[in-house]
Amino acid sequence: MLTVAIDAMSGDGGTGIIIDAVRTVLGQRSDVHLVLVGDPDHINQHIGSVPLPDGRYSIVPASEVVTMDDSAAVALRTKKKSSMRIAINLVKEGKADACVSSGNTGALMAISKFVLKTVSGIDRPAIAAIIPAIDGHTHMLDLGANVDSSAKNLYQFALMGSILAQAVDGIERPRVALLNIGSEDIKGNEQVKLAAPLLANSSLNYTGFVEGNEIYTDKVDVVVCDGFVGNVSLKTSEGVARMVSHYLKEEFKRSLWNKLVGLLARPILQAFGNRIDPRRYNGASLLGLQGVVVKSHGGADALAFANAIDIALLEIGHNLPSMIADRLGETLNAA
Amino acid sequence: MLTVAIDAMSGDGGTGIIIDAVRTVLGQRSDVHLVLVGDPDHINQHIGSVPLPDGRYSIVPASEVVTMDDSAAVALRTKKKSSMRIAINLVKEGKADACVSSGNTGALMAISKFVLKTVSGIDRPAIAAIIPAIDGHTHMLDLGANVDSSAKNLYQFALMGSILAQAVDGIERPRVALLNIGSEDIKGNEQVKLAAPLLANSSLNYTGFVEGNEIYTDKVDVVVCDGFVGNVSLKTSEGVARMVSHYLKEEFKRSLWNKLVGLLARPILQAFGNRIDPRRYNGASLLGLQGVVVKSHGGADALAFANAIDIALLEIGHNLPSMIADRLGETLNAA
Repeated sequence: MLTVAIDAMSGDGGTGIIIDAVRTVLGQRSDVHLVLVGDPDHINQHIGSVPLPDGRYSIVPASEVVTMDDSAAVALRTKKKSSMRIAINLVKEGKADACVSSGNTGALMAISKFVLKTVSGIDRPAIAAIIPAIDGHTHMLDLGANVDSSAKNLYQFALMGSILAQAVDGIERPRVALLNIGSEDIKGNEQVKLAAPLLANSSLNYTGFVEGNEIYTDKVDVVVCDGFVGNVSLKTSEGVARMVSHYLKEEFKRSLWNKLVGLLARPILQAFGNRIDPRRYNGASLLGLQGVVVKSHGGADALAFANAIDIALLEIGHNLPSMIADRLGETLNAA
Repeated sequence: MLTVAIDAMSGDGGTGIIIDAVRTVLGQRSDVHLVLVGDPDHINQHIGSVPLPDGRYSIVPASEVVTMDDSAAVALRTKKKSSMRIAINLVKEGKADACVSSGNTGALMAISKFVLKTVSGIDRPAIAAIIPAIDGHTHMLDLGANVDSSAKNLYQFALMGSILAQAVDGIERPRVALLNIGSEDIKGNEQVKLAAPLLANSSLNYTGFVEGNEIYTDKVDVVVCDGFVGNVSLKTSEGVARMVSHYLKEEFKRSLWNKLVGLLARPILQAFGNRIDPRRYNGASLLGLQGVVVKSHGGADALAFANAIDIALLEIGHNLPSMIADRLGETLNAA
């Protein structure tokens, strides 16, 4: 049985969408047990009259909630009875294999790091996500856990990203690249320039610099960057995808004829829409911790939240934290 | 007569596409004179048997070319007879009102700064471009001229961006925002956190932080960021737009029926394609110089290069460098 602790009090959409996601995942997989952490009355109220499958879930009470306005430090120090904290504690205590939360990213990172600790050799955990590409997908990190990352941080992100791609995609030697603003050696900021030789001299399959447009091609398996840059890039992508969808809808509404053609084209446009649907990519991994923690987008709906749970299950299935610890140990001992 | 010096030896597409663009612009506007800078034989060969309109253009010889591999320092010091250098010299000498080049960005920036000098109050010029948004467009800077921008640099970019939006869009109080990874004050890297109070206490209509996805909305007129971040964001956008177009084409090719619907939908898809066509946004301004310099994408085709010339003409029409110098003087004297 794979057990995932769910922070049932997190996210803009409230507990209702989380229960819907739980229902979906339990319906799809018989080897999963979900632990709902939060106010039991509130949770049961949202489960309502259609019960969840018996014996497949449990409720663990938590009397506090980390809000989006709580600073990471305040959440860490004062909210020890929060649903987020207790869900992470369950992972630490071995009562859950992973934790999923839609809550405050800074707080989730700080509490996870404090409770679970980082894997030996990793200074700062990173946020990684799967980004769609023209053929397949790309793993990208860091996406916002670390701003002002040093060259050493970038090197550690690269090591973790490479192990992630090995585990999840079964690629033996994932192609790892540094995100930069040009492919020449003289381009870039100090951290990137200093990180390049670290990666080049490592055992990684380092392929050099990539530019922003190359994230979405099949040139690379892992894109490494500072958290500020990665977060801007990821959110820019969401913005562009939304604008493009908006334009496409506008064109198909421009005239009565266009609307008629739009009706005919509807299944095609829907298939297209599904492919660029950000919900299908929801769920970012906090990598480098001694445990699996997945952050769902705050605005996730049930489909998106279920996807985040699936990512946690995928990482548990591959035993990702031990894999990172083992391979990192080998790499660092070999160095 | 508005006179624009064209670096006719620049760009991946060669002189042919530049001549095509010149032909387009001269056909559309009767108030423009274009100066083609480069090897006269080479240029005349590309003009070929269909002459350009008499008296509407001239050729100024240049015996060298700045290559994409030249470092900015080498280009500045050793290529004094290059088409890029001579085109910029023409602006300095008052023989042209603006210069357009598809060449090496670093070299263009270094030579422009050396020859034309920055406007008083500006330490480092910035690269600005017009980004499409759901309703209208956004001005964004810096897009790669400056990595590791300080808070003071960001403040100067904000001042210039605001004047640009005033001039080009006729907005009295453009909404200026700082690109960040969250809307809360505690988020961001050091430079952004330090820049925020500088903007808040200025005469600018500063609206706070925006995230990557908000660049493409109508929440803001000017987005200010470090050049590394801006360049990644811009290129990410290109990558996403290309991937999305690829997906859309794939869906319309998936079956014979889809192909038939695609034929019907063709004019609609074409109108959509035109709206996200990056060529229509080609042409980035080097702001903060005592002269108009526009950088065209290296891979620009004739349509895209013509657009870059149009941007130069727009900025000349608004007398942008003097406008920046005057308003900046007022702002800095008032401070």
